[in-house]
Amino acid sequence: MSELRQNLILRDWVIIATERAKRPEEFVTKNKEKKIMPEHSANCPFCPGKEDKTPPETFRIGDPPDGEAGKKGWRVRVVYNKFAALTPEGEATRQTCGIYRSMNGVGIHEVIIEHPRHNALTALLGAEEVTDIIRAYKNRYLSARENKHIEAIIIFKNHGPSAGTSLEHPHSQLIATPIVPPQIRNRLEQAVRYFDDTGRCVFCQTLQEELRAKERIIQETNHFVSFIHYAALSPFHIWIFPRRHMASFAAINEEEIKDLAGNLKTTLGKLYYGLDNPDFNYSIRSTPVDEPENAYFHWYLSLIPRLSQTAGFELGSGMFINVALPEKSAEFLRQVKI
Amino acid sequence: MSELRQNLILRDWVIIATERAKRPEEFVTKNKEKKIMPEHSANCPFCPGKEDKTPPETFRIGDPPDGEAGKKGWRVRVVYNKFAALTPEGEATRQTCGIYRSMNGVGIHEVIIEHPRHNALTALLGAEEVTDIIRAYKNRYLSARENKHIEAIIIFKNHGPSAGTSLEHPHSQLIATPIVPPQIRNRLEQAVRYFDDTGRCVFCQTLQEELRAKERIIQETNHFVSFIHYAALSPFHIWIFPRRHMASFAAINEEEIKDLAGNLKTTLGKLYYGLDNPDFNYSIRSTPVDEPENAYFHWYLSLIPRLSQTAGFELGSGMFINVALPEKSAEFLRQVKI
Repeated sequence: MSELRQNLILRDWVIIATERAKRPEEFVTKNKEKKIMPEHSANCPFCPGKEDKTPPETFRIGDPPDGEAGKKGWRVRVVYNKFAALTPEGEATRQTCGIYRSMNGVGIHEVIIEHPRHNALTALLGAEEVTDIIRAYKNRYLSARENKHIEAIIIFKNHGPSAGTSLEHPHSQLIATPIVPPQIRNRLEQAVRYFDDTGRCVFCQTLQEELRAKERIIQETNHFVSFIHYAALSPFHIWIFPRRHMASFAAINEEEIKDLAGNLKTTLGKLYYGLDNPDFNYSIRSTPVDEPENAYFHWYLSLIPRLSQTAGFELGSGMFINVALPEKSAEFLRQVKI
Repeated sequence: MSELRQNLILRDWVIIATERAKRPEEFVTKNKEKKIMPEHSANCPFCPGKEDKTPPETFRIGDPPDGEAGKKGWRVRVVYNKFAALTPEGEATRQTCGIYRSMNGVGIHEVIIEHPRHNALTALLGAEEVTDIIRAYKNRYLSARENKHIEAIIIFKNHGPSAGTSLEHPHSQLIATPIVPPQIRNRLEQAVRYFDDTGRCVFCQTLQEELRAKERIIQETNHFVSFIHYAALSPFHIWIFPRRHMASFAAINEEEIKDLAGNLKTTLGKLYYGLDNPDFNYSIRSTPVDEPENAYFHWYLSLIPRLSQTAGFELGSGMFINVALPEKSAEFLRQVKI
């Protein structure tokens, strides 16, 4: 018989389909060809030497762009997205159209080019290189929230075609929106209610429970814990929580950035070696810009390997059927040597 | 510049990415090989002659199963799902596990085999054949709600591999859950608030607005209207609304069943011929079992062609970026001759 498990943070239920559950090994991908990526690609606009093919640069780590050597001497480079979903010009005014509401697409859409090498997968980088990527995330987060129209900031990464990547050169993205997205508002509301009931942050509480139970932990570092949540929505759906209570990603300090880099690199390495480089998405969920500090929300990184397909039931109900047991998946990843 | 549009029913916002928008023709799929399906397949457990390979039958339309001819003489056949996500045995009791809650996987999971022919795509069937499928939906809906553990019933269909189908023989599914899924609860709460504010059903209001605006309508029949909503979440995301206010799918009458069959067949036909048989999911969203009649909810069919890939932004924010303009997509489908 299957089991329904409730996610304390969202109060939604997931069906853990033990009847049709797969063993962890059955999730190993078969896409060997994905791994053969060249170090540089002539047609890639993100490879060094084509800096003038991208929209304007907003940030870089590495040599400043003066002179030919300096121009190329970057380690991380951030540019506006060429096909931006939202753009910084204009005012974020609401209009009505019959009974509906609309708004100009004001916001920010940047691309964080993570490394000059075309085949620089995070799982295989050095810890210092991953640290640079997260430093860039923080810099762009702080910059985006200076824009008066911005209410929320999403930093995310798409790896591989099933995760929606169109360009294979490793990159992340930042989209800053002029409204608070409903899923984030919903999490805030649930977290406030939990705080009102218990006087505690539901995320801190969840972390404490997972550390007590131990069986779903993947990796503990000084400042972060990666685990597969009790009510994970899909196979190997991983959360990385900071141990310290911080509502906003903006509050991460330099020591924590280094620690997160190590934790993320190792967690992605376990997916890379354990499941043979699966496609994945990750995103950083943070409190809205207008309330950078509060007692009830807690930023975290949500990492979703694309190992299963959502279908009509998920789309129609919002409930998920997870065909992997979180405890077994975590045990499998703990044992992966990297 | 892009445009943000608010969905009045969910109050969420979608980014209509006009900067990167595609023309309707660009969504035509290239999977020609999908169409070559045999009339019968030797290995298919849903083809006639293999009735004893499926779990027990719960309903059929056509000859009753007495004698060899009768055994095979069905037009629609419903069986339990062999790999059921939820099963009818036992009690739906909640347990606690540390700070978490769990529950036995009590519920119903049935498969509605839509036609004896292996290649009987709904878009290409006769109206009477589609009517039988919807009659089966209603029968199973009414049967499921008799089970005292059931709180909500989802009827859905997955067509094609990107829509999560594992068996190609045309079939739909019914999953009845012992809780109200959070997405449905969320819609109910928003609809109640709208009703409290305006004294009207937000779905009736939306239908009236779409009929007034005209530009997003695909097809009107006597009792149903299919359209692409003003704030559609993804390209060619279609809603089919009953004109009559009905909170529960259970209230559909025989005349409406026939009309929905015609509307659904034509709408799917427009996708089939216009976009070359794209993969799709549809689901019927209905009020929970415990409140079959109310003034604020309105059941409808939501049809999602799988023409784009959700990525880290959608997963991290719950917001969608739609790269097709609803007005252009609806105009394109209106012009498809079938």
